[in-house]
Amino acid sequence: MSIVIRNGTIVNATGAHPADVLVEGERIAALAAPDSGLAEQWASGAERVIDATGKYVVPGGIDGHTHMEMPFGGTFSADNFETGTIAAAWGGTTTIVDFAVQGKGTSVLSALDKWHSKADGNCAIDYGFHMIISDVNDTSLKEMDACIDAGVNTFKMFMAYPGVFYATDGEILRAMQKARDTGSMIMMHAENGIAIDQLVLQALANGQTDPVQHGLTRPPELEGEATSRAIALAKVTGSPLYIVHLSAAHALDAVTQARDTGQNVFAETCPQYLYLSLEDLAKPDFEGAKYVASPPLRPKEHQAELWRGLRTNDLSLVSTDHCPFCFKDQKELGRGDFSKIPNGMPGVEHRMDLLYQGVVKGEITLPRWVEISSTTPARMFGLYPRKGVIAPGADADITVYDPTAQQTISASTHHMNVDYSAYEGMELTGKVSTVLSRGRVVVDDNAFHGAAGHGRFLKRDLSQYLVSTTRL
Amino acid sequence: MSIVIRNGTIVNATGAHPADVLVEGERIAALAAPDSGLAEQWASGAERVIDATGKYVVPGGIDGHTHMEMPFGGTFSADNFETGTIAAAWGGTTTIVDFAVQGKGTSVLSALDKWHSKADGNCAIDYGFHMIISDVNDTSLKEMDACIDAGVNTFKMFMAYPGVFYATDGEILRAMQKARDTGSMIMMHAENGIAIDQLVLQALANGQTDPVQHGLTRPPELEGEATSRAIALAKVTGSPLYIVHLSAAHALDAVTQARDTGQNVFAETCPQYLYLSLEDLAKPDFEGAKYVASPPLRPKEHQAELWRGLRTNDLSLVSTDHCPFCFKDQKELGRGDFSKIPNGMPGVEHRMDLLYQGVVKGEITLPRWVEISSTTPARMFGLYPRKGVIAPGADADITVYDPTAQQTISASTHHMNVDYSAYEGMELTGKVSTVLSRGRVVVDDNAFHGAAGHGRFLKRDLSQYLVSTTRL
Amino acid sequence: MSIVIRNGTIVNATGAHPADVLVEGERIAALAAPDSGLAEQWASGAERVIDATGKYVVPGGIDGHTHMEMPFGGTFSADNFETGTIAAAWGGTTTIVDFAVQGKGTSVLSALDKWHSKADGNCAIDYGFHMIISDVNDTSLKEMDACIDAGVNTFKMFMAYPGVFYATDGEILRAMQKARDTGSMIMMHAENGIAIDQLVLQALANGQTDPVQHGLTRPPELEGEATSRAIALAKVTGSPLYIVHLSAAHALDAVTQARDTGQNVFAETCPQYLYLSLEDLAKPDFEGAKYVASPPLRPKEHQAELWRGLRTNDLSLVSTDHCPFCFKDQKELGRGDFSKIPNGMPGVEHRMDLLYQGVVKGEITLPRWVEISSTTPARMFGLYPRKGVIAPGADADITVYDPTAQQTISASTHHMNVDYSAYEGMELTGKVSTVLSRGRVVVDDNAFHGAAGHGRFLKRDLSQYLVSTTRL
Amino acid sequence: MSIVIRNGTIVNATGAHPADVLVEGERIAALAAPDSGLAEQWASGAERVIDATGKYVVPGGIDGHTHMEMPFGGTFSADNFETGTIAAAWGGTTTIVDFAVQGKGTSVLSALDKWHSKADGNCAIDYGFHMIISDVNDTSLKEMDACIDAGVNTFKMFMAYPGVFYATDGEILRAMQKARDTGSMIMMHAENGIAIDQLVLQALANGQTDPVQHGLTRPPELEGEATSRAIALAKVTGSPLYIVHLSAAHALDAVTQARDTGQNVFAETCPQYLYLSLEDLAKPDFEGAKYVASPPLRPKEHQAELWRGLRTNDLSLVSTDHCPFCFKDQKELGRGDFSKIPNGMPGVEHRMDLLYQGVVKGEITLPRWVEISSTTPARMFGLYPRKGVIAPGADADITVYDPTAQQTISASTHHMNVDYSAYEGMELTGKVSTVLSRGRVVVDDNAFHGAAGHGRFLKRDLSQYLVSTTRL
Repeated sequence: MSIVIRNGTIVNATGAHPADVLVEGERIAALAAPDSGLAEQWASGAERVIDATGKYVVPGGIDGHTHMEMPFGGTFSADNFETGTIAAAWGGTTTIVDFAVQGKGTSVLSALDKWHSKADGNCAIDYGFHMIISDVNDTSLKEMDACIDAGVNTFKMFMAYPGVFYATDGEILRAMQKARDTGSMIMMHAENGIAIDQLVLQALANGQTDPVQHGLTRPPELEGEATSRAIALAKVTGSPLYIVHLSAAHALDAVTQARDTGQNVFAETCPQYLYLSLEDLAKPDFEGAKYVASPPLRPKEHQAELWRGLRTNDLSLVSTDHCPFCFKDQKELGRGDFSKIPNGMPGVEHRMDLLYQGVVKGEITLPRWVEISSTTPARMFGLYPRKGVIAPGADADITVYDPTAQQTISASTHHMNVDYSAYEGMELTGKVSTVLSRGRVVVDDNAFHGAAGHGRFLKRDLSQYLVSTTRL
Repeated sequence: MSIVIRNGTIVNATGAHPADVLVEGERIAALAAPDSGLAEQWASGAERVIDATGKYVVPGGIDGHTHMEMPFGGTFSADNFETGTIAAAWGGTTTIVDFAVQGKGTSVLSALDKWHSKADGNCAIDYGFHMIISDVNDTSLKEMDACIDAGVNTFKMFMAYPGVFYATDGEILRAMQKARDTGSMIMMHAENGIAIDQLVLQALANGQTDPVQHGLTRPPELEGEATSRAIALAKVTGSPLYIVHLSAAHALDAVTQARDTGQNVFAETCPQYLYLSLEDLAKPDFEGAKYVASPPLRPKEHQAELWRGLRTNDLSLVSTDHCPFCFKDQKELGRGDFSKIPNGMPGVEHRMDLLYQGVVKGEITLPRWVEISSTTPARMFGLYPRKGVIAPGADADITVYDPTAQQTISASTHHMNVDYSAYEGMELTGKVSTVLSRGRVVVDDNAFHGAAGHGRFLKRDLSQYLVSTTRL
Repeated sequence: MSIVIRNGTIVNATGAHPADVLVEGERIAALAAPDSGLAEQWASGAERVIDATGKYVVPGGIDGHTHMEMPFGGTFSADNFETGTIAAAWGGTTTIVDFAVQGKGTSVLSALDKWHSKADGNCAIDYGFHMIISDVNDTSLKEMDACIDAGVNTFKMFMAYPGVFYATDGEILRAMQKARDTGSMIMMHAENGIAIDQLVLQALANGQTDPVQHGLTRPPELEGEATSRAIALAKVTGSPLYIVHLSAAHALDAVTQARDTGQNVFAETCPQYLYLSLEDLAKPDFEGAKYVASPPLRPKEHQAELWRGLRTNDLSLVSTDHCPFCFKDQKELGRGDFSKIPNGMPGVEHRMDLLYQGVVKGEITLPRWVEISSTTPARMFGLYPRKGVIAPGADADITVYDPTAQQTISASTHHMNVDYSAYEGMELTGKVSTVLSRGRVVVDDNAFHGAAGHGRFLKRDLSQYLVSTTRL
Repeated sequence: MSIVIRNGTIVNATGAHPADVLVEGERIAALAAPDSGLAEQWASGAERVIDATGKYVVPGGIDGHTHMEMPFGGTFSADNFETGTIAAAWGGTTTIVDFAVQGKGTSVLSALDKWHSKADGNCAIDYGFHMIISDVNDTSLKEMDACIDAGVNTFKMFMAYPGVFYATDGEILRAMQKARDTGSMIMMHAENGIAIDQLVLQALANGQTDPVQHGLTRPPELEGEATSRAIALAKVTGSPLYIVHLSAAHALDAVTQARDTGQNVFAETCPQYLYLSLEDLAKPDFEGAKYVASPPLRPKEHQAELWRGLRTNDLSLVSTDHCPFCFKDQKELGRGDFSKIPNGMPGVEHRMDLLYQGVVKGEITLPRWVEISSTTPARMFGLYPRKGVIAPGADADITVYDPTAQQTISASTHHMNVDYSAYEGMELTGKVSTVLSRGRVVVDDNAFHGAAGHGRFLKRDLSQYLVSTTRL
């Protein structure tokens, strides 16, 4: 059973070239030069031939930061692993790495089990896990070893959310020592939650309860500070560090400085920080609640800095931090008290499209689009060359992308299980045409052909960005 | 007529994966997964099957900076295009970009013609040209357009060598404006030659005539200064800038700072700056003359900074600045007056091997080795995807590399036309096994099978690292 | 009752000039040019004429950081206000600013009362107080206003010593808001105590119990981190910030960067960080305990950076952090467990002499010596022009300094109530000759002529380094 | 013959205090505390008693950068030493340091003679000279020694004005070596004149001839570049460096970075860069010509950076670069060709007043006003303690300043010999009340009481900001 994709332009992270693709079963069997005559040969016996004339053939997107069915403040994010992965597939993303959550006082491995049970049999595309460590102690540190053996080797910690996920600098230090010793990686939510909580209390005490206060009480300096602190702790311990959802120029400066010295510090940003701003948070009639996520949307001038960071590779990749809550009933929990608005925004479906606008506008090159959306996540999270590249032997996770099609984002047409879109009405150039997940056509001709349960758990290797001298 | 390379591990710039390669004629026709059964099929009809078990199959090296048969101080560099390109092939390099030289008062296009006549029919591997602009005037600026049309779109200028190649800041500014307008690139020899010449005169006046004075009269601060100045001029004009043969931490700092802001500034270093130092220049009995090149070898502590720059991508790639002069008769011209020693060192043969030691020692990752020696040069100099990648449709410039073989560098065994080696006696892990140039096996089984005249001139496209917003 | 000081060279912070000084009662009544004939006139009616030929006449030293009779870990620092201020006077220091301590759960004002009762009637020289805030709450924040009215407007907080003095970032933020609103200043002990405590626990668990571990478990990166964090919190709140006892180049870098942007950030260092190092902490036979203070002594290479900071004014002044504990019985509490060694070193007596060595060695200019030891402390802590300058109207706190006298530091000759000297055997050029405290000769001819009780409490004004635009 | 100044507040560089001043002959004989009774005594025998109630008594201003009767482009600056120094006195400035000019091919010492002959007998206040070195050769380098002996130890060089004052980097290097060896100082006009001239030619070729082009063809990046280059050359040689008339944030950044490392780099700015901008240069009807000076006025956003630099001491002091040309006949030489407009603006009269507005607006503190306008110039240029401080023994150069008086700047009331004011109509708070030059009242009660010829040449010592370790 084979599929042939002909006449397209393959775009990998280093550049584009015309080539035909032979998919056999779940994997890419071969690539051929268009004039080699091989594609004709393959096509004759193929189950299906996809004509990609005028289209890009790119490795399926990898979204390294999603929260499906995530418990937060007494509710759950609105997408479960089925709805969320289907939406991802619609957007050309064929892998997600979601976050399992060790709660305070609970076991890391049982958390992993729990998340496996949420995801197994429900995903339409492949998936892996990061592990959130809320409770650092002798037991949980030992469990990290087992996690790593199980293919979950990236551990997220929080400098925000005191009383919930917050870890002290001492706990971070211990976890980082473990990461250093095992070659695994600490991911950090870098905001100074202790100081922020004080500002939140003061705002509420002053009767400042609107959603925009979510942004004003989390100033970018406090993201910059926490980022610098995490970098210092990583330096002291010798641990690799990955800053999640970087939103502020202040934090980017800290990352840039560290990377200039060769320290193993990496960062992602998210589409919302590239396109939305504090002005959205300030929308009247509680509309701003739709844009509440942490770190908050920043003043517009941060956007150019983030695009610059994507060009300079100080930002390594783009994930979504997809964590949708419906406006009705969920976001509304925070009417009259912004601190009760569930933190999170939908996004898994539109990452590839939104980043492609960067190519259209000249912010990034075409190969860089593939790099930040697929190749680097694959290398960063130990999935390459199985994912993240169009190459023989790789999983046939392939997105055929039409660079000239037009579309408009809307909650009325999107496939995420959430009642609003943060990008409502935004007009885009470029659109997913066909998507293969491990050799199966899951999206084609504007229809979903996949199925929950097709997606498999990915046991991930260690990050490929570390060299031995820096591992000592 | 086809060749199949089986059982090897393909290493491209983003990672490694096992795959078999089908070469048809001059190009790569197809790649196949080892378990696809395709390679067996191809092998049956192939002219030749190369077994690459246990070996890396990498894109042939691209040396972006060579000076074959280069006139300098009344003599010529000792390799001509034949001997130099044969030596390159021996070392796994299948493309060079050499420098044509517009002398003061001469025409750019006639210089190009002259260099074509030197190279045509003599090269064993493919080659392109950069153009050295010594004389900026209305005519030469216009000729740059014709050069670009002819596939020579990178223009080297000198802040050093007053009276010879030296360009004033006003001339540089004009050439940069042209580069900005055409999307071409200015390459810069960044040393403050005016200040250096003063220091040289003073040293000679003080009777300090030994080769080590070559280093002492060219302090790293004056490379840093010139690099900063070139960056400022590039900023003012909006021109891309490429710093050649960066040797000093001071210059790297300037490049790093500029790159952090997103400015289109790139830099290469050379193997000699990674492995050799001012101590070599200070060798007694005029032995130091073997190590005279400009910029000079630096104190040892610069080496770690350069390796760091290669990891952080503040150094984009590594070229050799291959410009050999024999110790006897040539280097000896400077006995008693270091300023008369011809500037230049041999290196084209050992770049791939020397950089591979960085992998062995953990300074860089395996894919980064391929990136800095082949893929980035190809992208930087407009040769990708024809060169710089193992992909269908690409030229079959392929180096099969044995990562465990041992070798010792020596003038008695190297193939460059020069009577000494700067790395005499250095023991290396890793060695070229087989080299294909455009589908022809030119090195195999420790023998050269190529021929002068096989190499063809490469009409190069513009650099692929520039995005449209930065071209305005 | 008047005193005339003749034939000396007055050194103020901007330079030196010969002039004669007329002291009437407690203050300087007049200065005259030597050739004006006025001094002869004054001398005729004077009670005393001091001949300062060949000597410097400088404003008495101001030590802005002492801990007399300070409770720490179940013991008290060995100098009380009497012994400590007498020792200070011997060393040419005529003012100290000591730290009152609000303990957790206690009142700020009652702490102030307590310290007044310790000091009143016991001091040989004038003194003021800073206030240590250990417990930030609505009450203590209000008490800060009363403190400021009482002339105590500098509030020290700790990012170290969890469970004792440690303040959370939220508490720091609240106190900083108060400082911003009142024009007062937050002083910060900037070490990441939470992370350090973890390293201390690990060292002890590994059986690493020697004094040198005190240094190794408090790496300079964690002082740099805390300094950066304090600066970020000061930026967010708009508060002035004063970093106490800065010891590490990492912290100096953070201060330098902040000062470059014009932020109101100031820092002091101490003589021990300029002259002693981690090697002292590593002395065998528990000798290292003598050098235990926090932040710890650093590797030698930090010293040059600190001298540089003193030259560039990134370090504004030098205090001692005088907090002596006897080796016997006190330091010995930490035998077998370095974490139990009382933190602190003696120093109040030798600050002026040790800094003068910087003049001798060419590290600083002569006026800079006066500036960092007297004038800047006076301006920083709201005592100028009463203190810190030789000018009419100023308190007659005057040190006549012999720049050529030789002396050797020793516990056997010093006047501090502690059984060792950190500088035992160190030979110095320069020595205090005569000291006046508010018009009274307290040290002269190698004898003490002062008395406990002579010193008066100084109600201090706000810092004079803040301009109104930066106070908003 | 004595003068007593009573009831005023003396402001020196470190702070303010009430004191009375006794002037005997040309110098300050004594200072007394107001309550000492001495002033009454002195007043009884005094020739004159000045009541300074409510006023500041400050050291007379020192303008370290003026060009009286300066030849430029075929004309001369409009103030000669008489008119210029009288105008200075009106504005509270009692010392100028003017620039003697060694032309190409002429002798340094004959230039000094020439300037002496211009100034001698004509100055109303004291004056010194810097020397412009246009021609660096063995002879002129030797003459620098004689210059230094003659009290002229600051040598200005130009990176701008090719063909006129321009020095090559090699020449600068030689002069800097001389400065290093002698403890003297190189002053630098830091603009990349070679690149600028190219931009000027291009503008003119494009028919862009208006005064605003003067600014547009001299972009701030090219001042930043030249400043960095001068700093690098100073680093290589070990020479102190003083950047004159710094106007651009880019240059300030370079100075700040160098100063952070402790390098002996200093810079001045001028009032015009603090208050005027590129908008003034763009005034229609050739009005912009009034604002043509080099470096040019910058976009407004540079102003805040310069004030910040004055606060942080990265800008050490403020001079005027007073070089007036009348609008009529002089500035008009450049109608139709901006490059022919004489470069320079009037300013010597208003420096003290304009800087005092910084105190009024809260940009700087009161003592900092005195420091940047008098004390630092005195220390920088080897005049302290003779000048720059109110202290016994100092020259009685005293400005009594009324901090509340109001005035409006206008060409119709100013005393400079130029037909326009760059600040026409600007309303100021604060005004000079009385001025003494070496004990003579030269301005009082809105009248000039001085005389050409009163001013004497000042043989200056070396800069006092260098410590011996940095002189090696």
